[in-house]
Amino acid sequence: MTVVNRQITLAARPSGYPRVSDFQLVYRPLPAPEAGEALVRALYLSLDPGLREPMNASSATPLSLGDVMPAAVVAVVLRSLDASLEPGDVVEGMLGWQEYAAADTHLLRRIEPDAAPFSTALGVLGTPGLTAFLGLLDLCDPQPGETVVVSEAAGAVGMLAGQIARIRGCRVVGVANSDTMAAWLFDELSLDAAVNSRSQDLEGALAESCPRGVDVYFDNVGGALSDAVFRRINSHARIAVCGQLSQINLEVPELGPRFLGRLISQQASMYGFLLVGFSERFADARKQMASWLAQGQLKYYEEIAQGIESAPQAFIGMLHGRNQGKQLVQISEM
Amino acid sequence: MTVVNRQITLAARPSGYPRVSDFQLVYRPLPAPEAGEALVRALYLSLDPGLREPMNASSATPLSLGDVMPAAVVAVVLRSLDASLEPGDVVEGMLGWQEYAAADTHLLRRIEPDAAPFSTALGVLGTPGLTAFLGLLDLCDPQPGETVVVSEAAGAVGMLAGQIARIRGCRVVGVANSDTMAAWLFDELSLDAAVNSRSQDLEGALAESCPRGVDVYFDNVGGALSDAVFRRINSHARIAVCGQLSQINLEVPELGPRFLGRLISQQASMYGFLLVGFSERFADARKQMASWLAQGQLKYYEEIAQGIESAPQAFIGMLHGRNQGKQLVQISEM
Repeated sequence: MTVVNRQITLAARPSGYPRVSDFQLVYRPLPAPEAGEALVRALYLSLDPGLREPMNASSATPLSLGDVMPAAVVAVVLRSLDASLEPGDVVEGMLGWQEYAAADTHLLRRIEPDAAPFSTALGVLGTPGLTAFLGLLDLCDPQPGETVVVSEAAGAVGMLAGQIARIRGCRVVGVANSDTMAAWLFDELSLDAAVNSRSQDLEGALAESCPRGVDVYFDNVGGALSDAVFRRINSHARIAVCGQLSQINLEVPELGPRFLGRLISQQASMYGFLLVGFSERFADARKQMASWLAQGQLKYYEEIAQGIESAPQAFIGMLHGRNQGKQLVQISEM
Repeated sequence: MTVVNRQITLAARPSGYPRVSDFQLVYRPLPAPEAGEALVRALYLSLDPGLREPMNASSATPLSLGDVMPAAVVAVVLRSLDASLEPGDVVEGMLGWQEYAAADTHLLRRIEPDAAPFSTALGVLGTPGLTAFLGLLDLCDPQPGETVVVSEAAGAVGMLAGQIARIRGCRVVGVANSDTMAAWLFDELSLDAAVNSRSQDLEGALAESCPRGVDVYFDNVGGALSDAVFRRINSHARIAVCGQLSQINLEVPELGPRFLGRLISQQASMYGFLLVGFSERFADARKQMASWLAQGQLKYYEEIAQGIESAPQAFIGMLHGRNQGKQLVQISEM
């Protein structure tokens, strides 16, 4: 039997939301590792909104048509031509939407077995967890009793940011895009209040959920929701801008109300957040997250699609905010 | 001869830019100081854009019709019922658009004679100076060689922010609203480049003036100019939002492009700035500004209208950005 490597490549540049036809499933030979590399088999791949932007020709780092779609992946080592890894080790790296990869071992992070399920390396103990932890705590430093609003609070990052704020003793208001998800935030994540961003009276719902205004806003969404939150920020509010899910699939960029006068009158600060540059904080953040996880203070949820061929549809669903928790694709079993 | 106190009050709420008919000159009896108060005669009053907002009914702290227009004023003490001040002392306080006032001496700041002309207490050594110094240095911490853009760079705050950035060793690009003013920024203030915000090709002019992008943006204006600057910010840019002169007189709030995606990709920080809360820094800031002034490193310019009756027209001109330097009204001579 010849083993093939199934990959998903960019077939066409999307206009607006991607469609399944913008992707192509291709069959390639198994890659052969060179010196310093390891051959790995993917277990889980991580779908996140940040993968949308390089699909655009206007991106600072655009994909070419035919390129394998990028993604963080958890994989098991099959063969290693480097002393740092051996067969059976589990690693995480930017390996893309494919079943196998040969990768420089320096670009792979070894994951400790037994610490937590391997999939958590792509969620609560991976990029989404670090984003929630550092974006919320390092940038916004929420204090007990302050009101923290989290948008896309049912998403991979938001569900963690909301819980971390709750652990900090804040009043946490989660925003999601359906009544069902809002109920889930309240019942499952134990947030203090939850708002459906599509409710008829969003302003009223926010006013009711934030009777003392908004001290910290952890934003993954932007757009009209953020406009409404900005109108409620308190003096010295801190805003971490971690994502703009409402904007990244627009065919024509939209206009919005100018809000910088409000930023002045409230002496508010706003921070555009990327993990780049925070690497010296990763170990501490992971350790604290793992400790909260072990103590049962932090929950996580995953939506797991099955098989590489399901990745495009799962990706599109996530861009529409349909996932409850971290969206993964399981590629193979350990 | 009976001395009267001429005041200018709010006669009508402006819609858009104020008109002269929105103000009224009224004659009142000379106020009588009570215990703990001093009777003062105004020398200079300070006109600044921050006085526009409370003219709106929608303001958080609206003026009532008939109220004396607010302003910081430098005044000479005529009579004092408090041991802390004596006749002939010169003070600064929020005394409003009027020729005389009786004020609680705790709300008056005594100005040292000989340090600099008294008018500077309303400019380079007053609120505009503190705003420029703290907004630029404390919030944005510009580094030698970085590119700093200052909007309304010919205004009371901007002319100082630009010079402070130059003293710091930055490449300073000033933006003003005419070719004449842009030339003045270059020739008189010795900025590295100057841009007319009304030039046909604003994007091109900014690109040419900022060949290495924008590291720090000190903004007094907002609107389309800021949209253009945001498109050029570098990684880890810092933006101090100190004023939004282009927005505060709009009859209908305008929409603008959403730019928070750019804030994320550049990991930029944005700070709404008011002096409130920085008071423990005032003494240091004033000392440094006075020292630069004494050494000739810092220049200041004033436009001085004459007589309380000229205040409305001077205020309106300033809102249109017509002043070169700090806009004052001289009310009387020392």
